[in-house]
Amino acid sequence: MKLVRYGQKGAEKPGVIDADGVLRDLSHELNDITPDCLGSDRLAALQALDKTELPEVTGKPRLGVPLDGIGKIVCIGLNYRDHAKEVGAEIPSEPIIFMKATTALTGPFDDIKLPRGSKHTDWEVELAVVIGKTAQYVSEDDAMDHVAGYAGFIDLSEREYQNKRGGQWTKGKSCDTFGPLGPWLVTRDEILDPQRLSLWLEVDGRRKQFGNTELMIFGVAQIVSYLSQFMTLAPGDVIATGTPPGVGHGMEPSEYLRAGNRLESGVDGLGAQNHFVVSV
Amino acid sequence: MKLVRYGQKGAEKPGVIDADGVLRDLSHELNDITPDCLGSDRLAALQALDKTELPEVTGKPRLGVPLDGIGKIVCIGLNYRDHAKEVGAEIPSEPIIFMKATTALTGPFDDIKLPRGSKHTDWEVELAVVIGKTAQYVSEDDAMDHVAGYAGFIDLSEREYQNKRGGQWTKGKSCDTFGPLGPWLVTRDEILDPQRLSLWLEVDGRRKQFGNTELMIFGVAQIVSYLSQFMTLAPGDVIATGTPPGVGHGMEPSEYLRAGNRLESGVDGLGAQNHFVVSV
Repeated sequence: MKLVRYGQKGAEKPGVIDADGVLRDLSHELNDITPDCLGSDRLAALQALDKTELPEVTGKPRLGVPLDGIGKIVCIGLNYRDHAKEVGAEIPSEPIIFMKATTALTGPFDDIKLPRGSKHTDWEVELAVVIGKTAQYVSEDDAMDHVAGYAGFIDLSEREYQNKRGGQWTKGKSCDTFGPLGPWLVTRDEILDPQRLSLWLEVDGRRKQFGNTELMIFGVAQIVSYLSQFMTLAPGDVIATGTPPGVGHGMEPSEYLRAGNRLESGVDGLGAQNHFVVSV
Repeated sequence: MKLVRYGQKGAEKPGVIDADGVLRDLSHELNDITPDCLGSDRLAALQALDKTELPEVTGKPRLGVPLDGIGKIVCIGLNYRDHAKEVGAEIPSEPIIFMKATTALTGPFDDIKLPRGSKHTDWEVELAVVIGKTAQYVSEDDAMDHVAGYAGFIDLSEREYQNKRGGQWTKGKSCDTFGPLGPWLVTRDEILDPQRLSLWLEVDGRRKQFGNTELMIFGVAQIVSYLSQFMTLAPGDVIATGTPPGVGHGMEPSEYLRAGNRLESGVDGLGAQNHFVVSV
């Protein structure tokens, strides 16, 4: 099932994409797509609905972040062997964790806003995991029971802020619009193997990133289990699982986003995003 | 005005401490203490109430986190000259930013839970700033208009997770109960000068930390302005402004929390916290 939120920012309604790719309204079933919808019972009830009986949404409404009330975004750094190599970093022996502010979230077709004066805003396409059930000290074997689904994500990163403005990475990761999620929240049943997904990103139609989740150093189940040893993962929490090779600051010479660029990206089975890059 | 939330975890009610220190119920005025209560108009309306006419709460109910719906906790690292010195770090030229998961929040008298197997859980008493009005690219001169108030905070930190488990500090900062906030959310009008507040922390009655916010490297207005250049600060966001000297891992030999310890702390004008340390 592909859950979406459609409409203007702050006034999104819940919807679902049916088997024919048609957007259907879910407003009569629930107020919004929120963490409390992500339990297996609630998802099963939504899945049992005959989608063809739901009202079709006409026109081309904006799509918002496909989940409201995301409590935290935990990101995994350097989680693809080939990406670690391109930026000259060692293969981590344990997952590297950092956080991104939830105020960075934005819709899958919204403009990406370069922060004032930014010259080093970079792209990182990622597979995002959405938690459906509270996870504390869960084993790898049990980890997937806590996953509600997946979505495409771009972990936009200002490299000067991240690496040259003192201290921790958060400073370059949390700018407004630096976390587009979507277009859909795809429930776990639709993704047979999260470790066999291609993901890609293009700037102005030129392919920059291409990879496959089979090259992750730490897989989804391992990450969920690992994180749950350090903090509670709550329904609606999002884990960004790291990026494959092809980021701008790994290139010779480095490349960064400029106002006017078009940023397209996608993950197998999770749809594609498309953003116009603007200055603020 | 001293706002509180009282009652069992997950079922807290809004309250206020009156001029005589008596807890009064605010349930007839609002459902809960949430970010949308923190705008200057809403706070003024609450302040205009005759507190002696509000129902007195009898008994000694638990106090919860004094604000529900906190969107993010942004922490400033190494923000006291004397603390930077004790841990052998250079004085930062710009604020060091990291984030703490909101799932780490806990009430001002709740137990602090040592993570499984943790041997290096350390204390850091801090002044927390609570945002009342959205801040994006605000100047230092305007910054204080965006502050709703203050609260005491302890930035509990597992030093092995923070420093020896790979990568960023978040891993040692986000464990459950590692962010006790309170006991009160004190509105800004009650604190004449946030850069003249003593703060202290004791373990089993022995004074470990003592400092004054006048020794901050970056003051509250500077921090709010600075952060707002990198991310939107939303109503209800919490900024932990750094800790004075006396943390356990700066001692010779190092000292850390053990199950059975009693942790007391306070900040001038913001009340005191008291926690029992337990294993999970």
